[in-house]
Amino acid sequence: MVRLLPPGHARLERATSLGVEVGGAELNTAAGLVRLGHSAAWVSRLPDNPLGRLVHNRVWESGVEPRVQLAADGRCGLYFLEEGAAPRPSGIVYDRAGSSFAAQPADAFDWPRLLSGARWFHVTGITPALGDTPLSATRTALRVAKALGLTTSIDLNYRAKLWDADAAGRVMGELLHDCDVLLAGTEDAANLFGVTGADFAAVARQLCDRFGLRTVAGVKREAPGVWRNRFGGVGYHRGEFHETPWYEVEIVDRLGAGDAFAAGLIHGLLAGDFGRGLHVGAAFGALKHTVPGDLPTSDLVEVEAVLAGGGLRVQR
Amino acid sequence: MVRLLPPGHARLERATSLGVEVGGAELNTAAGLVRLGHSAAWVSRLPDNPLGRLVHNRVWESGVEPRVQLAADGRCGLYFLEEGAAPRPSGIVYDRAGSSFAAQPADAFDWPRLLSGARWFHVTGITPALGDTPLSATRTALRVAKALGLTTSIDLNYRAKLWDADAAGRVMGELLHDCDVLLAGTEDAANLFGVTGADFAAVARQLCDRFGLRTVAGVKREAPGVWRNRFGGVGYHRGEFHETPWYEVEIVDRLGAGDAFAAGLIHGLLAGDFGRGLHVGAAFGALKHTVPGDLPTSDLVEVEAVLAGGGLRVQR
Amino acid sequence: MVRLLPPGHARLERATSLGVEVGGAELNTAAGLVRLGHSAAWVSRLPDNPLGRLVHNRVWESGVEPRVQLAADGRCGLYFLEEGAAPRPSGIVYDRAGSSFAAQPADAFDWPRLLSGARWFHVTGITPALGDTPLSATRTALRVAKALGLTTSIDLNYRAKLWDADAAGRVMGELLHDCDVLLAGTEDAANLFGVTGADFAAVARQLCDRFGLRTVAGVKREAPGVWRNRFGGVGYHRGEFHETPWYEVEIVDRLGAGDAFAAGLIHGLLAGDFGRGLHVGAAFGALKHTVPGDLPTSDLVEVEAVLAGGGLRVQR
Amino acid sequence: MVRLLPPGHARLERATSLGVEVGGAELNTAAGLVRLGHSAAWVSRLPDNPLGRLVHNRVWESGVEPRVQLAADGRCGLYFLEEGAAPRPSGIVYDRAGSSFAAQPADAFDWPRLLSGARWFHVTGITPALGDTPLSATRTALRVAKALGLTTSIDLNYRAKLWDADAAGRVMGELLHDCDVLLAGTEDAANLFGVTGADFAAVARQLCDRFGLRTVAGVKREAPGVWRNRFGGVGYHRGEFHETPWYEVEIVDRLGAGDAFAAGLIHGLLAGDFGRGLHVGAAFGALKHTVPGDLPTSDLVEVEAVLAGGGLRVQR
Amino acid sequence: MVRLLPPGHARLERATSLGVEVGGAELNTAAGLVRLGHSAAWVSRLPDNPLGRLVHNRVWESGVEPRVQLAADGRCGLYFLEEGAAPRPSGIVYDRAGSSFAAQPADAFDWPRLLSGARWFHVTGITPALGDTPLSATRTALRVAKALGLTTSIDLNYRAKLWDADAAGRVMGELLHDCDVLLAGTEDAANLFGVTGADFAAVARQLCDRFGLRTVAGVKREAPGVWRNRFGGVGYHRGEFHETPWYEVEIVDRLGAGDAFAAGLIHGLLAGDFGRGLHVGAAFGALKHTVPGDLPTSDLVEVEAVLAGGGLRVQR
Amino acid sequence: MVRLLPPGHARLERATSLGVEVGGAELNTAAGLVRLGHSAAWVSRLPDNPLGRLVHNRVWESGVEPRVQLAADGRCGLYFLEEGAAPRPSGIVYDRAGSSFAAQPADAFDWPRLLSGARWFHVTGITPALGDTPLSATRTALRVAKALGLTTSIDLNYRAKLWDADAAGRVMGELLHDCDVLLAGTEDAANLFGVTGADFAAVARQLCDRFGLRTVAGVKREAPGVWRNRFGGVGYHRGEFHETPWYEVEIVDRLGAGDAFAAGLIHGLLAGDFGRGLHVGAAFGALKHTVPGDLPTSDLVEVEAVLAGGGLRVQR
Repeated sequence: MVRLLPPGHARLERATSLGVEVGGAELNTAAGLVRLGHSAAWVSRLPDNPLGRLVHNRVWESGVEPRVQLAADGRCGLYFLEEGAAPRPSGIVYDRAGSSFAAQPADAFDWPRLLSGARWFHVTGITPALGDTPLSATRTALRVAKALGLTTSIDLNYRAKLWDADAAGRVMGELLHDCDVLLAGTEDAANLFGVTGADFAAVARQLCDRFGLRTVAGVKREAPGVWRNRFGGVGYHRGEFHETPWYEVEIVDRLGAGDAFAAGLIHGLLAGDFGRGLHVGAAFGALKHTVPGDLPTSDLVEVEAVLAGGGLRVQR
Repeated sequence: MVRLLPPGHARLERATSLGVEVGGAELNTAAGLVRLGHSAAWVSRLPDNPLGRLVHNRVWESGVEPRVQLAADGRCGLYFLEEGAAPRPSGIVYDRAGSSFAAQPADAFDWPRLLSGARWFHVTGITPALGDTPLSATRTALRVAKALGLTTSIDLNYRAKLWDADAAGRVMGELLHDCDVLLAGTEDAANLFGVTGADFAAVARQLCDRFGLRTVAGVKREAPGVWRNRFGGVGYHRGEFHETPWYEVEIVDRLGAGDAFAAGLIHGLLAGDFGRGLHVGAAFGALKHTVPGDLPTSDLVEVEAVLAGGGLRVQR
Repeated sequence: MVRLLPPGHARLERATSLGVEVGGAELNTAAGLVRLGHSAAWVSRLPDNPLGRLVHNRVWESGVEPRVQLAADGRCGLYFLEEGAAPRPSGIVYDRAGSSFAAQPADAFDWPRLLSGARWFHVTGITPALGDTPLSATRTALRVAKALGLTTSIDLNYRAKLWDADAAGRVMGELLHDCDVLLAGTEDAANLFGVTGADFAAVARQLCDRFGLRTVAGVKREAPGVWRNRFGGVGYHRGEFHETPWYEVEIVDRLGAGDAFAAGLIHGLLAGDFGRGLHVGAAFGALKHTVPGDLPTSDLVEVEAVLAGGGLRVQR
Repeated sequence: MVRLLPPGHARLERATSLGVEVGGAELNTAAGLVRLGHSAAWVSRLPDNPLGRLVHNRVWESGVEPRVQLAADGRCGLYFLEEGAAPRPSGIVYDRAGSSFAAQPADAFDWPRLLSGARWFHVTGITPALGDTPLSATRTALRVAKALGLTTSIDLNYRAKLWDADAAGRVMGELLHDCDVLLAGTEDAANLFGVTGADFAAVARQLCDRFGLRTVAGVKREAPGVWRNRFGGVGYHRGEFHETPWYEVEIVDRLGAGDAFAAGLIHGLLAGDFGRGLHVGAAFGALKHTVPGDLPTSDLVEVEAVLAGGGLRVQR
Repeated sequence: MVRLLPPGHARLERATSLGVEVGGAELNTAAGLVRLGHSAAWVSRLPDNPLGRLVHNRVWESGVEPRVQLAADGRCGLYFLEEGAAPRPSGIVYDRAGSSFAAQPADAFDWPRLLSGARWFHVTGITPALGDTPLSATRTALRVAKALGLTTSIDLNYRAKLWDADAAGRVMGELLHDCDVLLAGTEDAANLFGVTGADFAAVARQLCDRFGLRTVAGVKREAPGVWRNRFGGVGYHRGEFHETPWYEVEIVDRLGAGDAFAAGLIHGLLAGDFGRGLHVGAAFGALKHTVPGDLPTSDLVEVEAVLAGGGLRVQR
Repeated sequence: MVRLLPPGHARLERATSLGVEVGGAELNTAAGLVRLGHSAAWVSRLPDNPLGRLVHNRVWESGVEPRVQLAADGRCGLYFLEEGAAPRPSGIVYDRAGSSFAAQPADAFDWPRLLSGARWFHVTGITPALGDTPLSATRTALRVAKALGLTTSIDLNYRAKLWDADAAGRVMGELLHDCDVLLAGTEDAANLFGVTGADFAAVARQLCDRFGLRTVAGVKREAPGVWRNRFGGVGYHRGEFHETPWYEVEIVDRLGAGDAFAAGLIHGLLAGDFGRGLHVGAAFGALKHTVPGDLPTSDLVEVEAVLAGGGLRVQR
């Protein structure tokens, strides 16, 4: 999607200009993986017009390979961001009805070919919420991925503006059958699956039991202000609870932190080290808050500096 | 609609920011009438979200009264403008599918109340092209306007991206039965009605004959460059052809010149003086080229200076 | 007035550009009332030049009706804002000498007509400080308002750069005879009237006694930084002291918060509910800190979210 | 003065930001002389506030020595520029009433000290138009300059918004008694002195006769557009008429070209070479059109390139 | 290289901000080929710091594959552009001494591997001018390219600031032994090789004779202004002279037009059609003038519209 | 040096524009002294191109006299700043290799003439690190300064990217023989001289003993965030330890605070009052954090307000 944001904390309804960024949950994670040293591709469908090409160019710029159809039908999904400040939260106006991706025909994507040679497939709960063919494509992609031996991960990412919790719970529960790694927060777990518990560990244990998972992870966040948060990661892996320290973050751009966390987690899991993944994910997600745009732009050097507790003095 | 334009002649597909303007054919004309000393209202339907309010606020700012429904359904129509330079023309990406206006239910507008007390009703060929209910609303509005004794005007404004010429010709031809003043160019006349001729006068005469009109007017334009044009007005009224001088225009913003011309024409006709209207329209349209945005921001003082052939020295 | 502010915390003396906003104490409150669902008009006198029209247009944009004289004499009042950062406070350079408003002739305003049909009249202590005719106009307006049965409110808003405290105390004390609701802080009460006390309640009680008022209200503020404050409202009504919680505010623009508070207070009092007014005023004032410009742009939805203690997570 | 200009050809009444430049007729000429290799000082009176310091800093930046009083009274003169485009000329809103300079007390400037060691004194017709004390200061400065043996020059620069032509003609005529070099156009000569003629030479000859001058010079300009002009210099010296070629100028900023011409002319005359001065002035004035702001920023290298007819290819 | 350009025609010495673009002669041509539907890679050496990554990212964004070494030594080449306006040409301040590319060690590039699978190798006269190792690398690359059966092209692109004409002539003459297609203008031909003639055809014929070439092509340009030029292509192929029409160009950004022409020419030659290449090159080069930045962003659709003489009306 | 900073916390590698500031350790201190009421000159060597003139102009603008050679050789030193946010510190990419200053020939500066009439000479440890001739020039300047009776100060300012600690320690130790006042932090003292201790006082005492100094001073800083610090000054003078209160600073621009501190310290010492210097320095340094750019722009009025504990309310 293309993100449009009035600069200077202006209200959308008084905007005289809008900054342009490109983002999207899966794309953000793919870009994060590139930053962490992996190669990654992003599958989507965009309109064959300047806006579609804008997204396409920016995906290339991020180092992610755009495996993208440029379609004659549909439009480019947009969202408008309005930055808040305490006591007013930031808000988003989604404008993605009728997107080329949502308008995809059945069998638009040749998944066996698209996934050939890959090690990991990642998708979020936003994609199947976009319509019946996107849901069907998600289902197929997960099945093909499993059949080809890829590891699969799903980030629940429930969006109440897209579908209701019952439908989401039913669909996501079904998709989890082809999922190895679940990214989820306790709130989504309660809303979608009715799973509640005293803490993340309790919830994650039930999710593992119910869906036959070995790994559930998510972020933790405290928000004393819109522009200053505390952030970290929590996870449950092979029956054990893990947790990172809290990071104090001065926020430049709040969006995409969870997707960056997912990239760090996958980075660790690709090396067979869940703990490493959790810590890299938390540091990478914390760092995402410090740069404008949806896509993470830190690298392992910066991640290691955070993990080592490096200070805040000017580097010169 | 909200217009989004990358500054500095940037290409849309490389845009990092977009300037925000508000415009629309009928709104532009209404704003022009306010500038020329009249009161005017604009009837529309907008989403009840920050983008809808953006349009609403800017309409107020222009001095036009927004008789606008803020609707729960639909989205805000957008268009993206990409400025060219010779030998590349400027281009527009329309993104108005699914707008709240197009999604209007039948009988959304109470025309007898909305038109009560008005002297003139103006609409363009874009509005009926937006869907069946917009067409039906246009038809009703014109009939109510005539029944209430208003003068009515239609600007053909054929947009090939919205409908084909056959459909447009059929519909516009029907709507012209309730029309007093037609704004049209020879190209649209040929495309929609198959009316051709040696020059504007020949075409206008046939249009008057076929549709029972007394008045047809339009703009004339020569484009040696994207940023330098020659501009003026032509008209056919009660059987006589009128023409203004050519104005050399240094273009700041090309859009809305025809709508400003319409405002000037109506200004003259409201005073019963077609010739005055044609000349004010041409000068007002020429002046529109010199200001950013879709809406005209000149006034009669500036119009008179142009008509008087005032020079180009700094006014101090 | 037109506000000119160098972006990026630049110092005025090194400014290369200035952002343009429009504001003014009474206008800010009027715009706040429009946001809270009321209709409001603003009475003023502006030069008939592009700067006067700039103010005029922006007043329309805010939804306030500009009952404004466009005058041939005088200039447009300006003020230059320079943003600070701890330990340096923000500063203002006023440049409003010779404004068209200050230059108003006697009887410039036909108050019986201007106030006809209104329910409330609000003015601040800045207006009578601008000169003898503005003072006279204020006095007349208050008397006419009372005669027509309007409720009247005065915000003391003492500006030491405009007049000395003795003169201000004398004048404002006299004007308070036609005032129903006083907005004041303890500092102004001490400076202008010599009224001191242990706390707001003690001061407010004395003000009520001396000036025959039933209602005195004001804001409370703690400023640990220039860009982070604590804010709330205090009031004394029919002999009882009221107080809102403190709100932690991340400041985007500090100006106009007191004027927004006044709008919220009037909103409540128009419904006969002082407590509601105090709480809406405090939330509305807190929200004003979060948007650029002098004018409040929140609405009751946002106010209710603050009153309900809604969190700071992105709304999506 | 501080110049405020909305970017992007925006209209002042819709401005959301204003670019800040510093200029003034005499200052522009002084800065031009510094660029051409001379030292120059500028005498003025500014308010002791951030705006006054803004002017002060920018004068330093230009290399001109600011011999400036920072005064407690008065304000900083401003002007707002609104750029036009054919067929609409650019316009200026002056806002300099009450400036610290206009508010100068009698004998504010110690001219013998200020002019000590200088070779040339230059003033324009704007300064004496600002009030009685500015006029008196101009008169004194010219007399002291002559007494100290300086060459003096006056640029008529008639501003109809400041005074009427009769008063201006009377005052300027008197001041010309202490003037060696007059810069004037035929229009001002007609308006102020009633001197008319077939061409510049005829007018200049009469001016020389009437005021006992040896040298009169001015610019010539044709304006087919607001942003494209033809420009050059004309002069009458010791009874002979001189003229430069026409330069085609693509205009970036129209203001200050005449002041730059004056700098070039003085540059030549300081070396005793009127013809050189006229040609340097014309080239320097033409070059001024190509840079933003009131102050010229070209140097002799660029002047020589223009005089040599250097082409327009990128210099690399 | 990174290009830094003060916006708004500001002079570099008064710049307060600089726009950032990425370009370079060979990169511009590669990006042009991608736009015309080919795949292309760019070989270079950049510092492993944020500036090097800036270039790297932008190359990806353009669709060109960056075959780039990120080196620990050297810096990122910069150039500062200052836009002129008639009568002042634009100017460039190069700041590329000590670049990582110039600091390349011998045998930095494995040309057989880098060129494997390619059909064409293109280089300009700027690269060998950067130092001994860049020259040596150029020589090797050309030889390897020929050995592998690639077609090779050289754009003379003589830069007097980098080396003197004698040295350039000697080196380029030697390199031409491995060159199939020469891009050159008559001025460079005269300066470097002493080849002069009545017109392009005469010069090109001699170049072909002397260096055993079949194809020489170049651009033609007339510059009545800095911002309006006439542009086209000329060529000599298998003994025949070819020429395109002149295109009137409104210039948005002058740089990179010759490199875009080269891309169009190669596009045609890759299809075995020199005439097509010349015409596509001229149209593509004309279009390059209309977009900001060094890299062409038009495509074949826009090229065809220019070739078909499409008009300048807004495309909607 | 010229500082280039992407606005809006953008990453350098994604920058589309860069803000331009001018700074440098000694220049910053000189500008601070001008702000505090002194006259100051800055000695340097700059390239005779637009970038060199940019620095030259800005030095003038700051009120510092540029005693600068405009040289034909060398380039203009640049540095790129990338702003961080917790947990990511800000970073700097220096690009000053090959600067005109570093390329100075032996005896480039005539120190006896340059220092004639001055009271104080200040230099930092950055200058001798730039090469052999800069070191030699520093050594000569210090000796000449002492011989002429000036007070001398050195700010250690160790930059690990320029030289290693051993070399720096050896050179700086030697230079300290001609130094009266040392500015240093405990970290540099340990790295360069191996001097460690329990606190600043212990370290400073040893530095005084080893180098025969009477005065050592420095800043103290705590960094809970990148954009919020605590700041103050510490000093050791004639055997006694001094310390200022901590100031909470909201940071607008972090760079140059130590140089501003040095200016305040010198201001006090010029009046013979070390304590005053330490407190003015700490307040002046705290204030530097609140303005953009390297150069301090506060004055004694603002310093006194901070020293008096003035609050953070808007000054109006």
